[in-house]
Amino acid sequence: MAADRLVEELRARVRDLEEELNRVRSRHDTRRAKIEKMSAEVVDSNPYSRLMALKRMGIVEDYEKIRTYTVAVVGVGGVGSVTAEMLTRCGIGKLLLFDYDKVELANMNRLFFQPHQAGLSKVEAAEHTLREINPDVQFEVHNYNITTIDNFQHFMDRISKGGLKGEPVDLVLSCVDNFEARMAINTACNELGQIWMESGVSENAVSGHIQLIKPGETACFACAPPLVVAANIDEKTLKREGVCAASLPTTMGVVAGILVQNVLKYLLHFGTVSYYLGYNAMQDFFPTMSMKPNPSCDDKYCRQQQDAYKLRSASEPKAEVVVEEESPVVHDDNEWGIELVSEVSEEELKEASGPVPELPEGITVAYTIPITKPTSGATVEETEQSLEDLMAQMKNM
Amino acid sequence: MAADRLVEELRARVRDLEEELNRVRSRHDTRRAKIEKMSAEVVDSNPYSRLMALKRMGIVEDYEKIRTYTVAVVGVGGVGSVTAEMLTRCGIGKLLLFDYDKVELANMNRLFFQPHQAGLSKVEAAEHTLREINPDVQFEVHNYNITTIDNFQHFMDRISKGGLKGEPVDLVLSCVDNFEARMAINTACNELGQIWMESGVSENAVSGHIQLIKPGETACFACAPPLVVAANIDEKTLKREGVCAASLPTTMGVVAGILVQNVLKYLLHFGTVSYYLGYNAMQDFFPTMSMKPNPSCDDKYCRQQQDAYKLRSASEPKAEVVVEEESPVVHDDNEWGIELVSEVSEEELKEASGPVPELPEGITVAYTIPITKPTSGATVEETEQSLEDLMAQMKNM
Repeated sequence: MAADRLVEELRARVRDLEEELNRVRSRHDTRRAKIEKMSAEVVDSNPYSRLMALKRMGIVEDYEKIRTYTVAVVGVGGVGSVTAEMLTRCGIGKLLLFDYDKVELANMNRLFFQPHQAGLSKVEAAEHTLREINPDVQFEVHNYNITTIDNFQHFMDRISKGGLKGEPVDLVLSCVDNFEARMAINTACNELGQIWMESGVSENAVSGHIQLIKPGETACFACAPPLVVAANIDEKTLKREGVCAASLPTTMGVVAGILVQNVLKYLLHFGTVSYYLGYNAMQDFFPTMSMKPNPSCDDKYCRQQQDAYKLRSASEPKAEVVVEEESPVVHDDNEWGIELVSEVSEEELKEASGPVPELPEGITVAYTIPITKPTSGATVEETEQSLEDLMAQMKNM
Repeated sequence: MAADRLVEELRARVRDLEEELNRVRSRHDTRRAKIEKMSAEVVDSNPYSRLMALKRMGIVEDYEKIRTYTVAVVGVGGVGSVTAEMLTRCGIGKLLLFDYDKVELANMNRLFFQPHQAGLSKVEAAEHTLREINPDVQFEVHNYNITTIDNFQHFMDRISKGGLKGEPVDLVLSCVDNFEARMAINTACNELGQIWMESGVSENAVSGHIQLIKPGETACFACAPPLVVAANIDEKTLKREGVCAASLPTTMGVVAGILVQNVLKYLLHFGTVSYYLGYNAMQDFFPTMSMKPNPSCDDKYCRQQQDAYKLRSASEPKAEVVVEEESPVVHDDNEWGIELVSEVSEEELKEASGPVPELPEGITVAYTIPITKPTSGATVEETEQSLEDLMAQMKNM
């Protein structure tokens, strides 16, 4: 009798524990079901409704195409982790992640990682979180340093065969924090003719940049060598013991945002893809420019790609227009916080920006500050000014 | 005997289940211990080392001061949630969160919320995640719509007494997605003389803005009324059934980033605080401007604040210089992606950039630092043409 009651009690306890375990697990690990086909249906349960709406808004022609693309993210730190998260939430087809670092509490001043992940490898922690967020994305993660000889070969191999169907990836994104790794990515992409984007944040945390590099067509990382590399200084000697760089979630979030925006514009063909976009947080200044490759670049593959590009350009006069350089429709926000679709056309926007000056070759203007139309006098009551004219004027107040 | 073995087995099962339950629980709910005092020590376990490094880098004089500030975030959606996360990771003293929405799978195309949180209120889900990230921050969340009469009174009360010591909050951030809520915040801040920042993202997802509003000193939201309000159109009639706005994690991440960067610059006194910063993602164009208040603003509290500001300015000639308008030191990133502390002086950088071309007035070159002092000539900043003249004209169109 006593034994029977004990067995009964133990069985009840096992049941309770199993139920509680299921509850705790499901609270944290309930993944949504995979979605076969992106839908534009406007229901609360559709994670793609606000992305598919980009079609209705006239911004993107074929949003679903994003599922066919593969992007490699090298470096899953302050910029790379947010970059991977944005691409995951946008429903990218496949992500390859490369990093060899562990999550530390010292990383908690940037977005993405959480304190309970401290000690895990960054790629492992990132993959777990990203799968929870969007199980439709395919992940391939590599927990190694790409700059060692063996790993570099494997990295090259995955870049050239890591696509959804074994083809090369569509883009490589450099989100690393040191020159050695950047030069490794540069070398690999030059050899493979792989288009990639660079990103970086300064050690004082208040500036950053992104850059699109098309081997042979634009300057590679070795064409315009960073001073440290040019002077052959060992980075390690520059980093003193106990001195750490500053970082901010704001600057890194902005850099990840403009990086992934550039990726979306490049892959989905909308807007103007930037070749270089800087961010100076102290003054809210965003310089842009583009750089031609250096014919005497140290990297022989870069020189080969330059020759190949010249041949391609010569035989196919329009071959270089891979990326839609001019956006057909600009639904620009106006300056009043009006959030309905605006009627300002690109033509009008250009006009409002004033004339573009004569510049030395290879230099483009940061951003042209809109110039007021030469209206005579300051009285406006009797003029026939359009709304656009007024807005252009107000922009300057 | 058989009964004994069964009891033994059941006991072992109970032990296993208890252990597993502890493992699963601790994996998800391990919070780090609270930290009494921010330290600059460079160890992996210090979540503030990279923020305190801003002092060593010469960017921020007194980073610890951030713990004394309280910020209210109204709207915890695509922009507000990331805004709250950035402030939490930066170690803000206290956050007040206001929202009345629930998390839906349809929100998963933006950062922050996770699928397993679907169905929870946004403020509840946000508070849970943010506490895990940084237990040093104090949270006060309100799950209601601030635009109803009762809630509006309570909102006003919390804004004016919600600080760490019962004082008014230091800043209110508007991260809402509709004009009614923006006007409610505007009304409250005008009445209270509360400095706040506005943010917004367009319905087509490819532009946004942030704006700093100092009642009486800069244009309030009613001074330059959005067309929808000016024309007295009901927003609801504009939003058709089944039509949803587009949104992107990129645009919202950038807007949250520039918003919180402006908050940090304002609270910690570094760099130039922007009065208005726009983001046009199609062309990577970032317009800035500032607007004077409208003397005949519809909001009587705005007019009162304008009078009060004039009195203050008259009695204390320097009173308006609350925010450091010109940054004394610009640690500008150079264009070569160098991320170590660069030895290149600003002089050398200018030289390396080559001659600055002759440019039309108001246009600056990509990588020279913009001159803030207005030059002679009829630049619009100096014109006496008032905003209300332009607005009056707009209303008549």
